[in-house]
Amino acid sequence: MTSSPPPESLDPQDWEALRQLAHRAIDDGFDYLQHVRDRPVWQPVPESVVARLRGPAPREPEGAEHAYAEFRELVMPYPMGNIHPRFWSWFMGNGTAFGAVADFLAAVMNPNMGGGNHVANHVEAQVLDWSKEMVGFPADASGLLVSGGSVANFVGLAVARNARGGVDVRELGVAAIPRPLVTYASVEVHSCVQKAIESLGLGARSLRKVPVNADYEIDVRALEHMITEDRAAGRQPFCVIGNAATINTGATDDLDALATVCEREGLWFHVDGAIGSLLALAPQHRHLVRGIERADSVTLDFHKWLHVPFEAACVLVRDRKAHRDAFALIPEYLEKTERGLASGAHWFSEYGLQLSRGFRALKVWLTVKEHGLERFGRLIDRNIAQAQELAALVDAEPTLELVAPVRTNIVCFRFNPGGRDDASLNELNQELLIRLHESGIAAPSYTTLGEVYCLRAAITNFRTTSDDLALLVRAVVDIGRTLVS
Amino acid sequence: MTSSPPPESLDPQDWEALRQLAHRAIDDGFDYLQHVRDRPVWQPVPESVVARLRGPAPREPEGAEHAYAEFRELVMPYPMGNIHPRFWSWFMGNGTAFGAVADFLAAVMNPNMGGGNHVANHVEAQVLDWSKEMVGFPADASGLLVSGGSVANFVGLAVARNARGGVDVRELGVAAIPRPLVTYASVEVHSCVQKAIESLGLGARSLRKVPVNADYEIDVRALEHMITEDRAAGRQPFCVIGNAATINTGATDDLDALATVCEREGLWFHVDGAIGSLLALAPQHRHLVRGIERADSVTLDFHKWLHVPFEAACVLVRDRKAHRDAFALIPEYLEKTERGLASGAHWFSEYGLQLSRGFRALKVWLTVKEHGLERFGRLIDRNIAQAQELAALVDAEPTLELVAPVRTNIVCFRFNPGGRDDASLNELNQELLIRLHESGIAAPSYTTLGEVYCLRAAITNFRTTSDDLALLVRAVVDIGRTLVS
Repeated sequence: MTSSPPPESLDPQDWEALRQLAHRAIDDGFDYLQHVRDRPVWQPVPESVVARLRGPAPREPEGAEHAYAEFRELVMPYPMGNIHPRFWSWFMGNGTAFGAVADFLAAVMNPNMGGGNHVANHVEAQVLDWSKEMVGFPADASGLLVSGGSVANFVGLAVARNARGGVDVRELGVAAIPRPLVTYASVEVHSCVQKAIESLGLGARSLRKVPVNADYEIDVRALEHMITEDRAAGRQPFCVIGNAATINTGATDDLDALATVCEREGLWFHVDGAIGSLLALAPQHRHLVRGIERADSVTLDFHKWLHVPFEAACVLVRDRKAHRDAFALIPEYLEKTERGLASGAHWFSEYGLQLSRGFRALKVWLTVKEHGLERFGRLIDRNIAQAQELAALVDAEPTLELVAPVRTNIVCFRFNPGGRDDASLNELNQELLIRLHESGIAAPSYTTLGEVYCLRAAITNFRTTSDDLALLVRAVVDIGRTLVS
Repeated sequence: MTSSPPPESLDPQDWEALRQLAHRAIDDGFDYLQHVRDRPVWQPVPESVVARLRGPAPREPEGAEHAYAEFRELVMPYPMGNIHPRFWSWFMGNGTAFGAVADFLAAVMNPNMGGGNHVANHVEAQVLDWSKEMVGFPADASGLLVSGGSVANFVGLAVARNARGGVDVRELGVAAIPRPLVTYASVEVHSCVQKAIESLGLGARSLRKVPVNADYEIDVRALEHMITEDRAAGRQPFCVIGNAATINTGATDDLDALATVCEREGLWFHVDGAIGSLLALAPQHRHLVRGIERADSVTLDFHKWLHVPFEAACVLVRDRKAHRDAFALIPEYLEKTERGLASGAHWFSEYGLQLSRGFRALKVWLTVKEHGLERFGRLIDRNIAQAQELAALVDAEPTLELVAPVRTNIVCFRFNPGGRDDASLNELNQELLIRLHESGIAAPSYTTLGEVYCLRAAITNFRTTSDDLALLVRAVVDIGRTLVS
């Protein structure tokens, strides 16, 4: 149709020049990923770079060319490191090259996934159906793509709170709930669950932390006892959270037993599977999450073991009505029409906090199609085998010791040359870890189990090889020896 | 360092082939944006396409080439439309080509912005500093990039709740707050604010809706009266929310007057500026948001008038300690170190719900550098001038009428050929809008003001020209005439 472009625009004056820049960005990005192994896993950001990243916002255009040159100089050389074969900190995926292309394509189309009749919502619906398949949820369950496990847990617990509060919690608030709601999770539950409970206004003290056994799995007897006690004290047990792989050690609670307790006691069963839900894809380890399919709500992260770039996760809720009832609010400017742009079956804004929502479904959809579910399952099994391999290397080193059983892909260990108490060893291992990071050789993280500080390698990495694990062990021993000598 | 890649990986077997695919994606994406004007603004998704987007997840790899071909065939042709020069629905930006490249680069580096010592956190810190500059906030204020206005409002109100609850709300929950907290906002407040209040456990009934004047701005006298009444009734007024441009009509409350009320009454002043905060950049209209710099917390959306691709928004909080106190929770596996990967000054996970966070800061940083703040200001002024232009075209058409005053960039109007009551006109205009969408010519949205359904054009579009507005008016009149004849 007619009309020339407006005189000033955010479209480029010269489309061809910007297109050439984009092609260079592709080559630079691909070089970066293809040769990531040749670079240090991590290096500190120089103070001179930090200084250049301070200062007022430009008033006048610098242009894409100049902005990109600064990106290449100041930003690209100092990544976090989780794209590297020897990064095993916290619990993160690598991302993929095609996943990055997907994010470009999503931003080109730039739909708003809050609602409306357009294809992107159908892509999200398919990704949600696939997610149900992955964990064995029924096809008529509900779901939502979200930023990560924290928000996924928040949404699941918000639905639980509103469905089980016994009053109209949305209208009347938490203070109107007759008997205080109590949630149960093991002491190993992720901190984001507590943040969700706090944000929902339930109060951290309403989250009862249940003891764990020697394998860091929830003590089901203790849980049952606490439920009985709370009922006797006039409180209202309403939700149990099962861990599908904990952040500290990768332990998975007995989800089947928890589901049985919840059924018997009439409690909402939420599974925090940010890490472990996708174990359901792994032929050799899916038994670990048996019972997950019985949950009322479950979370899974695509940016962990599916290696989709940040941010991409999912919450599934068995009871679609309860899910929608917790969040749907339809003002006059969001009324649906029967046809046209404002029609459509998928109004995802009615299932969570966000109204404007990006097309994160695309990278999940393309990634699953690129690789197929079975490859992800094999790679998860391999990461777990690599953890056993690392554990064996640690065992074989006289100066290293395991600090927790290795159940999945997380290895907690420390350097212990003998003759020192825990306090001294804690200090030693803290310095050792920092020097390991600074060496650029490998980046495990850390945790404290009981009173014991340990190095912690969470192997969620499709680039890791056996040689990488051997390099880690050698570097830890070398740095440890240097420190004590 | 040594080691060949593992036998099976999510890295491509053939890097060169995937690189070529990525170059094609760049060309396809650029063609798509460069020639967006030649396509319909919107078209329905064919049932055959919807059907192909159903089915089980692939078990075996389909490969990137096949996945991309399906994307091109099934997804790319059916966008929402907000990239098009004649899309004015709801309130959305267009996105930009360089912004899409930025999302590719962010996903290549794929850092986790929850914390740690790496450069991406410094980029976010700079973007936050620039955001403070934009709205006149002090340099030592706190802030966080979030997905959009909904979450930004949620964060701001969570901080307010916890800071002003009078008890340890995180630990004890909302039920422990002695006198019920009351929040005030005009009847025109966005629905996401109510969702935030509900999610925070305060109850929708604690959100008091204050009447508006004929310009849809909050009635400050009525607000003062309600505060007095609530205090007398034993409730605890604690927060006033000012609208910097409402979603229905673009009205902006008198923020300066609200700030004065809040100061005097000791209330938290939150500004929902998802739409309007960036008016502060616009030389001819920044007076509309005078007083925004006095807020305790303020939200702004980059994916609206900064045209950054979804999702990108920001919340600023004057009191850094209150902000951090509302969300910081540091378990053993997130303890900071003095040096190494786990050091660093910016742990953004301590300022919101998310632990894993993507590098959305990059697209904001690159976009601001590409264009400079002044260009955005000029484009905002132009959108508002275009709204006046559209209003004049509507005024000049005997069969069209304005339904609300045009204060910023939102024009609410309807087709009214005379001789019909509101109910009949509402029905007529609903069908008219759907046919307009189906024509592919233009996509305004709709709202209902009082009992009057109207078409609603929110011009947040750097591609819109005067000819586009004329086309809209002609199409509305033509379709309207067809419908009544």
